Amino acid sequence: MAIKIYLSVVVLTLLVAIDAYKIWPHPKEIKTNESFLSIDPKNFTIKSKVNGDCPVLDRAIKRYLDRMFIVDCSRVNEHFRGRYFSNKTENFNKIHGYDGQMTMVLIQVHDKCETIPNTDMNEAYTIKIDKDHSIIDSKSVWGALRGLETLSQMITRAGKNQFRINIGQINDEPRFTFRGFMLDSSRHYLPLHAIYETLDAMEMNKFNVFHWHLVDDQSFPFVSTTFPALSEKGAYRSNFIYTPEDVQKVSHYANDRGIRVIPEFDTPGHTQSWGKGQPNLLTQCYDAKGKPKPNVYGPINPVLNTTYEFIQKLFHEIAQRFPDQYIHLGGDEVEFGCWKSNPILQEFMKTNHFGDDYAKLESYYITKLIDIVQNLNRSYIVWQEVFDNKVNIRPETVVNVWKGNGWPTEMKNVAKAGHHVLLSACWYLNYIGYGTDWYKYYQCDPQNFNGTQQEKNLVIGGEACMWGEFVDASNLISRTWPRACAVAERLWSPESFKDYKNAKPRFHEQRCRMQVLGLKVEPIEGPDFCYCDDAI
Amino acid sequence: MAIKIYLSVVVLTLLVAIDAYKIWPHPKEIKTNESFLSIDPKNFTIKSKVNGDCPVLDRAIKRYLDRMFIVDCSRVNEHFRGRYFSNKTENFNKIHGYDGQMTMVLIQVHDKCETIPNTDMNEAYTIKIDKDHSIIDSKSVWGALRGLETLSQMITRAGKNQFRINIGQINDEPRFTFRGFMLDSSRHYLPLHAIYETLDAMEMNKFNVFHWHLVDDQSFPFVSTTFPALSEKGAYRSNFIYTPEDVQKVSHYANDRGIRVIPEFDTPGHTQSWGKGQPNLLTQCYDAKGKPKPNVYGPINPVLNTTYEFIQKLFHEIAQRFPDQYIHLGGDEVEFGCWKSNPILQEFMKTNHFGDDYAKLESYYITKLIDIVQNLNRSYIVWQEVFDNKVNIRPETVVNVWKGNGWPTEMKNVAKAGHHVLLSACWYLNYIGYGTDWYKYYQCDPQNFNGTQQEKNLVIGGEACMWGEFVDASNLISRTWPRACAVAERLWSPESFKDYKNAKPRFHEQRCRMQVLGLKVEPIEGPDFCYCDDAI
Repeated sequence: MAIKIYLSVVVLTLLVAIDAYKIWPHPKEIKTNESFLSIDPKNFTIKSKVNGDCPVLDRAIKRYLDRMFIVDCSRVNEHFRGRYFSNKTENFNKIHGYDGQMTMVLIQVHDKCETIPNTDMNEAYTIKIDKDHSIIDSKSVWGALRGLETLSQMITRAGKNQFRINIGQINDEPRFTFRGFMLDSSRHYLPLHAIYETLDAMEMNKFNVFHWHLVDDQSFPFVSTTFPALSEKGAYRSNFIYTPEDVQKVSHYANDRGIRVIPEFDTPGHTQSWGKGQPNLLTQCYDAKGKPKPNVYGPINPVLNTTYEFIQKLFHEIAQRFPDQYIHLGGDEVEFGCWKSNPILQEFMKTNHFGDDYAKLESYYITKLIDIVQNLNRSYIVWQEVFDNKVNIRPETVVNVWKGNGWPTEMKNVAKAGHHVLLSACWYLNYIGYGTDWYKYYQCDPQNFNGTQQEKNLVIGGEACMWGEFVDASNLISRTWPRACAVAERLWSPESFKDYKNAKPRFHEQRCRMQVLGLKVEPIEGPDFCYCDDAI
Repeated sequence: MAIKIYLSVVVLTLLVAIDAYKIWPHPKEIKTNESFLSIDPKNFTIKSKVNGDCPVLDRAIKRYLDRMFIVDCSRVNEHFRGRYFSNKTENFNKIHGYDGQMTMVLIQVHDKCETIPNTDMNEAYTIKIDKDHSIIDSKSVWGALRGLETLSQMITRAGKNQFRINIGQINDEPRFTFRGFMLDSSRHYLPLHAIYETLDAMEMNKFNVFHWHLVDDQSFPFVSTTFPALSEKGAYRSNFIYTPEDVQKVSHYANDRGIRVIPEFDTPGHTQSWGKGQPNLLTQCYDAKGKPKPNVYGPINPVLNTTYEFIQKLFHEIAQRFPDQYIHLGGDEVEFGCWKSNPILQEFMKTNHFGDDYAKLESYYITKLIDIVQNLNRSYIVWQEVFDNKVNIRPETVVNVWKGNGWPTEMKNVAKAGHHVLLSACWYLNYIGYGTDWYKYYQCDPQNFNGTQQEKNLVIGGEACMWGEFVDASNLISRTWPRACAVAERLWSPESFKDYKNAKPRFHEQRCRMQVLGLKVEPIEGPDFCYCDDAI
C-alpha cells in the first residue's frame, strides 16, 4: 500500500500533463511533458518482438491500427451524412513542444505468448514514447494488449489526417486481478452482436472477465449437445439460442481481447426453464392438502440420484466448452417453499436429521455439485448465499458478494474465513434512476471494509452486473455504458483515484471515444456533447 | 359521458374478439367475430375516393402498403442474419371461420383533402371489413390516416407470405384533440433520423402534435435566417444545427403523418444560449457589491426596447417557418436572482410601482411577448407559471400544466379561469426508475380532477415529455418507447380503458409491432420476448 500511495502523489504533481492524455482507466503512473510527436498514419507501423508466434498480438495490432486514426464519424452509424471532424491543417513546426514525427512503436513481450487469458494473466506494461524509440514493454501478451489500448487513447487527432502524441512514460498494472462484467442472456435474448459490442466496450475499459449469466428461470438459450432438449424446449424461440459455434465465437472474441469467459449455470434455484427440457429435474410442488400442483415446480430436486447424473454430464460438457479455470455455480435465492411442500423431500430431511433447516438440504445439494465440478478439475465462483449457508467450500473458492445491504460486513466475513471474494453489491447497473449515477459506482471500493491487510488481499476484484429483466439489445449498450466505465477505473487504477470531480473530464472523453468507435453510449452527466452526436 | 360509458360496455362484451385485433391505442368501438379473410399481398390494393387530389393520402397508402406485409426481421437491423418468421403454410380452407380473400380496401374521404394538420383536424373514421366490400370511411384525410394505422394493426401474419384479417367493424375517434409528444433538442443535439423515428413512433400511436423544444440554455441549434449568429454561436457545434431545410423536412415528415409541429421558443428564462449570438439580450448580473459579474447573465432583459425589437423579428420568422396556429412560448422557471441584482432593472421596478414582486416584471415581459405573437396571428401555449403569475392571457391560450405536485388543483384552476389546459405533469418520461412504470402513465387521467363538466371540457389533452438532459440519439427511442404508448392510449381511447392488466397483452403486441418496423423499443414489462429480439 505504501508504494501505491507514493505513486499517487507522483501522479498528482503531474496533473496537467495527465489530463493531456485523458486515459481511462487511469494508469498507475504517468510521466510526461509538453513535448509531442506527430504521427502520419500512412507512415506509421507497430512492430512486435515476441518469443515465437503470437497470433493474439498480431490480431490486436491490426485491430488497434484500424482504430487509432479515425478522422470522422463514419463508424458511428450507416446514416452518417458526410459531416466531418475539423479539417484544418496544423503546421506542427509552429506549435510549442513539437519534437518530430513518430513512425514506429515496438511492442516487446518477454514471456512466451499465451493464447487464452487465465487467472494468472499478467497485465502489467510500460509505455515509453520518445523521439528516437517508442516502445510498449510487457512480460506477457496481455500486458501488451492493455498497452495498445492505452497507446490508442494517447494518440489524439490534430487536424485533417494529422495525429499527435505527447512524449512521456507510462508504468501501469491493474489494482485487482479480477475485473468482471456480468451479462444476463436469459431474461431477454441477446443477439451475438450485442455481446461482441459488450466485449469491445470491456476491452476499451480494461475489463478482463466476461461473466456470462447464460441461463435462468425464463429461458435456456445455451445449446447443450448432451441435452439438446434443454434449449429446444427452454429457449424463448427455436432461434433464440447460442449454438456451440456461437459460444466458441464469443469465447474467441473475448480471449482475443484478453478477456476470460466464465459461464454461470445457476442452480438449484433459478432453473424453471431447465425443467422444460429435462423431466423430473425440478421438484414437484404440493398444495396444502398434500396433492401435487399440476405443472408447478420448484428448485432442482436434490434428493434424486438422477439429478446428480444429469448435473455430472451437463457440467462435464460445460467444462469442455469453456476452458477457463472457473465456473460460476450460482447458488443464490433458493426458495424453500416448494421443497417444504414435497413429501419425498420431507422424508429425506427426516432420514438425514436436517430438522426443519432447508438450508442444510441446499448445502447437501451444493456440496455434491461442488464435488462434481472439482472432479472436472475446475474451480468455482458462488453467490454469497452458499457461504452464508455454511456450505463446505474449498479455500480457492471465490465468493461473489451481491446483496446491497451490509456488503462490507459480508466481505469481511468471507475474507476472514479465508476465501477469495469478489464484489458486485454496489455495481448492479440494471438498477437505474434519474440523473447522474456513475459517481456512486466510482466511489464504491471493494477493500473499503473493516479488515486486516491479509483479509483485504483476499479481495480479488469486482464485477459490474447488468441483469436482463428490462434490458435487451435495444438498450443494452446505451444503458450499461459509460456507467460501467466507473467500475472499470475503480478496479484497474490505484486506490488513490477516488475523486470523481477530477475524473469527470476523462470520463467524458472516454464516453466520446467509445461513441466514435460505434458504441451507442448514453449521456449520463447532463447536457453536453460528443463530436459524433449527429451521427449516432 | 353517458355515451362513452355505454360504448365501453359494448366493447367489454366482445373482449375475446377485441384481443384478436390487439389494436393500440384501443378504438372507441369494435364489433367483430371469428370469421376472417385471407390477404395475398400480391393480389391486394388500397384505393381511395377523395374530392380532388390528395397527395398526403397517396403517400400514406404507399407507406402503409409497405409496412402491412412484413415477413421477417430484416427492417430491424442490417445485421439481420437470415432468421425468418415461421414459414409454415396455412391451409385457410381448413380453418374455422375462413370466409374468402380480401383483395381491396377502399378509403373514402368525404371532405376536401387538407395538406396540413391543424387545430380543427377531424380524426374520426370507421372501418368495415367484410367479404364483399372493405372500407375505411372518414370525413377528413386525417381520419383516413388513423384508419390506415388501425388497418395495418388488424392484419396479422398467418404463414409464409400469408396474411389474414378478422371480419368486423370499427368506429373510432380520439377522446382528446391534442395528443402531444415533446422532444428536447437543446440539452443534447438530436440528428434528424432520431426525430423521424420519433415521428414514426408517434404515428403508430396516433399522437398528433410534435412539440419541438428546439432551444434552451445549453444550445441553440435552430438556424434563424434573421439572426444567424444565434445558432452560429449558440449551437454546441457548427454542424449540430437545424437548417431551414431541416426544419422544413421535419415539418413535412410530421404533417404527412397527421402530426402538427409546434415549436417552443422558451423565454425569458432558459435562454443562456441565446445570449451568445445576441449581445445585450440577456440581463447582466451584478455581485453583492454592485459590480457586474463578468460573463454572468440571467434571463432576457425585459426593460430594453431592443429586446422587443429582437423578439418581434425572431417570432416573425418563427411564424413564417412553422405554419401551425400555435407557438409554445415557454415562460417556465424564471430565476429572479439576476434580475434582482441589476440596478437598471431595480430602477425600472420602482418606476413601474412593481415593489419587490419580480413576477410582475415577468408578467410585463410576457404580456409584451404575447402582444407581439398575437399581432402575428398566432395563438400560444405557455407553461403553467404564466398563468400562476397572473399574466393577462387570452381565453384560447393553452396552459401547459407540468408541475408534478398538485396538478389536479392546477388543472381545475386553469379551467375555472376559462383557459384551455394541457396536462404534462404525470408524463415526464425523462424521469426513469427501475422496473415497469408504464402502468402509472396509463392510469393518469387529465380529467381526473374535481371540476365541472364545463371545466373538464376545457382539457384539450396532454403531452408526454422527453427532456434531453440524459438523452441523445443513443437512448432516445429505447427510453421513450413503449413507455409513451401508455400516454397515447390514455389520450386517444375512451376513458373506460383504464385497467392496465387488460391492456398488457395489447401493450406487448404494440411494442413488438414497433420493433418489427425497426424502432429499437425497450422491454419495460420484465422478462419476455418479441419475434425480432435476435435482430435488434
